[in-house]
Amino acid sequence: MDRIPILKLGGALIVTIQVDMHDRLAVALEEDLSERIVRTGARGVLIEISALEIVDSFIGRMLDNIAAVSRVLDAEVVVVGMRPAVAITLVELGLTLAGIKTALNVERGMAMIQARLAEEDADGVESAHGHREE
Amino acid sequence: MDRIPILKLGGALIVTIQVDMHDRLAVALEEDLSERIVRTGARGVLIEISALEIVDSFIGRMLDNIAAVSRVLDAEVVVVGMRPAVAITLVELGLTLAGIKTALNVERGMAMIQARLAEEDADGVESAHGHREE
Repeated sequence: MDRIPILKLGGALIVTIQVDMHDRLAVALEEDLSERIVRTGARGVLIEISALEIVDSFIGRMLDNIAAVSRVLDAEVVVVGMRPAVAITLVELGLTLAGIKTALNVERGMAMIQARLAEEDADGVESAHGHREE
Repeated sequence: MDRIPILKLGGALIVTIQVDMHDRLAVALEEDLSERIVRTGARGVLIEISALEIVDSFIGRMLDNIAAVSRVLDAEVVVVGMRPAVAITLVELGLTLAGIKTALNVERGMAMIQARLAEEDADGVESAHGHREE
């Protein structure tokens, strides 16, 4: 399998990382995600990494890239499900994922995205994005 | 990675199949799912299979098993994201997944589960399951 499935649910895209990432797969994921954000008008991306036992600098850079591209496309990336050992390793490596939001699990991550949507609705910002709805 | 992550969201569990299933992994998934259904009181299980290019009799049997066990635990299984080619192969093989509900994508599958929950709420059945909430 050379593509990671992207699920759309309630204004957000959900990706579960469960295979070892390599260069080509990471590039494909970045492309697929950008394309889906534009096509669906999603405002948030949840990346679930509970299956990852190690987050090295390669994965860290991939997450950073995805977050940066998503931000330009006006979608927010939330990394969820990180194992305690992974968090410890990240800090030890000096990779603090500075530009990326994290949440304990998918439910809390989704709540963050919904809260952002509700806030923007209240501000009337949403209408400016109406043309991007699916 | 020897475990497939199970995400909990809005009363449902979501599983994305994206690696080749083998015996041990299938058994682990069945066990993990049953355990999570009981622990979280989830009433629905969404199994996303858009990454699968082939659904053979082994996968068919696994889905059947998961559906049967979930039913006993009072949760409904909905298989979502099936590729057209997979659907054609299934019918040609005589595997019609008779006991399993299907939906086009995660959003529609989730809507089916939410509709079932709402129906039960209206019937007042929900209170009988209150003790299973997380």
